[in-house]
Amino acid sequence: MLSRPVPVPERDGLRAGKAAGCNAQALLPGPGFCAKPGRNRRDRTGHAMCLRGNRDPPQPGADMTDRFSFALQATDGAARTGVISTPRGKIRTPAFMPVGTAATVKAMMPESVAATGADILLGNTYHLMLRPGAERVARLGGLHRFMNWAGPILTDSGGFQVMSLAELRKLTENGVTFRSHIDGARHELTPERSMEIQKLLGSDIVMAFDECPALPAAEEAVARSMRLSMRWAARSREAFGDRPGHALFGIQQGGVTEALRAESAEALRAIGFDGYAIGGLAVGEGQEAMFGVLDYAPGMLPEDRPRYLMGVGKPDDILGAVKRGVDMMDCVLPSRSGRTGQAWTRRGQVNIKNARHADDPRPLDEACTCPACRNYSRAYLHHVFRAKEIISSMLLTWHNLHYFQELMSGMREAIAAGRLAAFEAEFHRVRAEGDIEPI
Amino acid sequence: MLSRPVPVPERDGLRAGKAAGCNAQALLPGPGFCAKPGRNRRDRTGHAMCLRGNRDPPQPGADMTDRFSFALQATDGAARTGVISTPRGKIRTPAFMPVGTAATVKAMMPESVAATGADILLGNTYHLMLRPGAERVARLGGLHRFMNWAGPILTDSGGFQVMSLAELRKLTENGVTFRSHIDGARHELTPERSMEIQKLLGSDIVMAFDECPALPAAEEAVARSMRLSMRWAARSREAFGDRPGHALFGIQQGGVTEALRAESAEALRAIGFDGYAIGGLAVGEGQEAMFGVLDYAPGMLPEDRPRYLMGVGKPDDILGAVKRGVDMMDCVLPSRSGRTGQAWTRRGQVNIKNARHADDPRPLDEACTCPACRNYSRAYLHHVFRAKEIISSMLLTWHNLHYFQELMSGMREAIAAGRLAAFEAEFHRVRAEGDIEPI
Repeated sequence: MLSRPVPVPERDGLRAGKAAGCNAQALLPGPGFCAKPGRNRRDRTGHAMCLRGNRDPPQPGADMTDRFSFALQATDGAARTGVISTPRGKIRTPAFMPVGTAATVKAMMPESVAATGADILLGNTYHLMLRPGAERVARLGGLHRFMNWAGPILTDSGGFQVMSLAELRKLTENGVTFRSHIDGARHELTPERSMEIQKLLGSDIVMAFDECPALPAAEEAVARSMRLSMRWAARSREAFGDRPGHALFGIQQGGVTEALRAESAEALRAIGFDGYAIGGLAVGEGQEAMFGVLDYAPGMLPEDRPRYLMGVGKPDDILGAVKRGVDMMDCVLPSRSGRTGQAWTRRGQVNIKNARHADDPRPLDEACTCPACRNYSRAYLHHVFRAKEIISSMLLTWHNLHYFQELMSGMREAIAAGRLAAFEAEFHRVRAEGDIEPI
Repeated sequence: MLSRPVPVPERDGLRAGKAAGCNAQALLPGPGFCAKPGRNRRDRTGHAMCLRGNRDPPQPGADMTDRFSFALQATDGAARTGVISTPRGKIRTPAFMPVGTAATVKAMMPESVAATGADILLGNTYHLMLRPGAERVARLGGLHRFMNWAGPILTDSGGFQVMSLAELRKLTENGVTFRSHIDGARHELTPERSMEIQKLLGSDIVMAFDECPALPAAEEAVARSMRLSMRWAARSREAFGDRPGHALFGIQQGGVTEALRAESAEALRAIGFDGYAIGGLAVGEGQEAMFGVLDYAPGMLPEDRPRYLMGVGKPDDILGAVKRGVDMMDCVLPSRSGRTGQAWTRRGQVNIKNARHADDPRPLDEACTCPACRNYSRAYLHHVFRAKEIISSMLLTWHNLHYFQELMSGMREAIAAGRLAAFEAEFHRVRAEGDIEPI
């Protein structure tokens, strides 16, 4: 068992050379944001708005710090549990970060996101730079205030989404030029501009600018891309500068090739970051190949820094990643699924559209304490989905985020107690039972 | 000042003949519904879910009764304030009923609707009978449980919406046959079936089945329609039977013709109802004509029963109606406007789509205590509307419902204090100032 707070130096060193990073969705402000924007207003309606996550007991000790730091609290095999401290609050790890692409976790009030147990949100640099614009967000007081989330926010670098969403992309050593998918306006992203945008947004955890190839890809292409990302990582580190209380994460690339992953990790360690992401996975390679990389990749990264697996994933992906030493993850899955009538439960996926639910008075999951499960029947959820009512997205997203956070909480407790293997066996046993029988 | 509880007899008498009623949107369950559906669940996330309306201080005395009754507490000119007591809770009048067409107030959690100050919701018989179906709702424990609203619900009779939404309508003395606008299935509504459906839904305030012509219409057509509605009102009364704790309201028709309104009121009083609606207005006649009718129509109805103006309206419509003696109203306006980027404030309407808001750090209304105004800037509301984010509908609907309930609360207080004229003057003064200047 480890228990040592590791204040992360603001700058570990810098070497021009290689650093990688990819993927990433969107980053938002954290829980408990109740600062009144400069006006004397009565608080009559909103007294319920400042919920904290409630899945775990509160963290002991002072809640605030002026530094970014990571304290490992326990390990169980390769799995780790700990706490990332930031000036905006603590992040219990392993942590799942809901994605708030355009300054909102879709269909959720931010206080509801906090109520599910989320300590940190992810915001998307690509989306926010296009609309409403980073300079505008800065003038409005930063992303936390803009979207009413007081906790930590991680922003991606924009690199991944430029490659997946933008039009007329042109990639050079300097960066990437592209046209907005919204209005066709021309933009440029470079490591320097990505750092600037993430600073304008007020991000607490900034991601190095990277390029991320889809898999499968030729090893040579993956190597070339990785080395470009490592050069960009060094430029990101240089441009980020010295920002106490804010963290910069480097992103390992290298596809599914162990030697390339090792080369990338070495490049990143030489540059020095506050945390290290594993990028370039969950891009089409499949779970088996991803776990294959995760069997070695986390171990290549510094033990005393958080390790963030970008864009992952389904509950069993998350469990498999945590078991292999990952501390942070993000994915649009719980919120996106919620909008298409898909619920994630202990027993697997439930398609609420299915006619079998039309007369079912039972909740989605009778053991779940989210509002959708406490207050509504499957019949109601089926009805409002079929009637295209907005509350369908609101309730299913809430349920899914709640379930994902409950999974994280369960893993944190299991790791702390040294019983992650038993937790995993129970996870798979209940899932294998499948959904409850129709009535 | 009046202060006399009037227990409404379950049955005042019955005369075959005439009774009217029209319009109506959709009805939903009331505030504070926290009954756990038969399972032993921990309450960890949901402790904020049971908010009561907070716009007025709690009503004195016992909160529950086994009878439906109406107690006038004060009058100010023709305006009245009082309390309707039902087994599911009290309704402070004048009351505005948010509309929950398909078992949800669109884009709102029911506890949020309660937090705006709503004591009662309206549900639409037409929509609910088609989907999910009245028998299904009954099997699932009734509309209150289905949609998680424990307070009173008023359901319309279905008559108005059959005429405005259904296909292939055929009207006879017996009732109306039509095809569903959802799936084309054939249905029939009669006074007897409407009473049955509203009973299956578990409605607290049931509306007599009526027919409502659009205006302008020939006086002869209006008279013929009104007399049919009066015969249907008598059949509704007969079919409703004796249901302690539930109320049946008759609906006055007669268009804009005073003699027809008088004939209709006389027919309804002879039949005897627990409350009386003014139907057939807000159907195209304009505010001046509507107020013209409201100058005499409320006075034709029993003083000791609630008077409900169906389908009204904008804030100035509501104020004008209350001034003329109306106790209850409903309208889709605040929720529908919220989904199209229209906000209602003390200063009139704000179109949040307008580019003038893109950089505006100020709230919609700095005096408003709703979450949209306390926690977000106009710039944010503009951004999420433009980005088509669901939270746009959630926040603007919440704001609008909050504003409408605040208006009702202000009128109740003003009537109780005998200063409604001053309240009205201030209402129009602030509106005339218009929205705040752009920054």
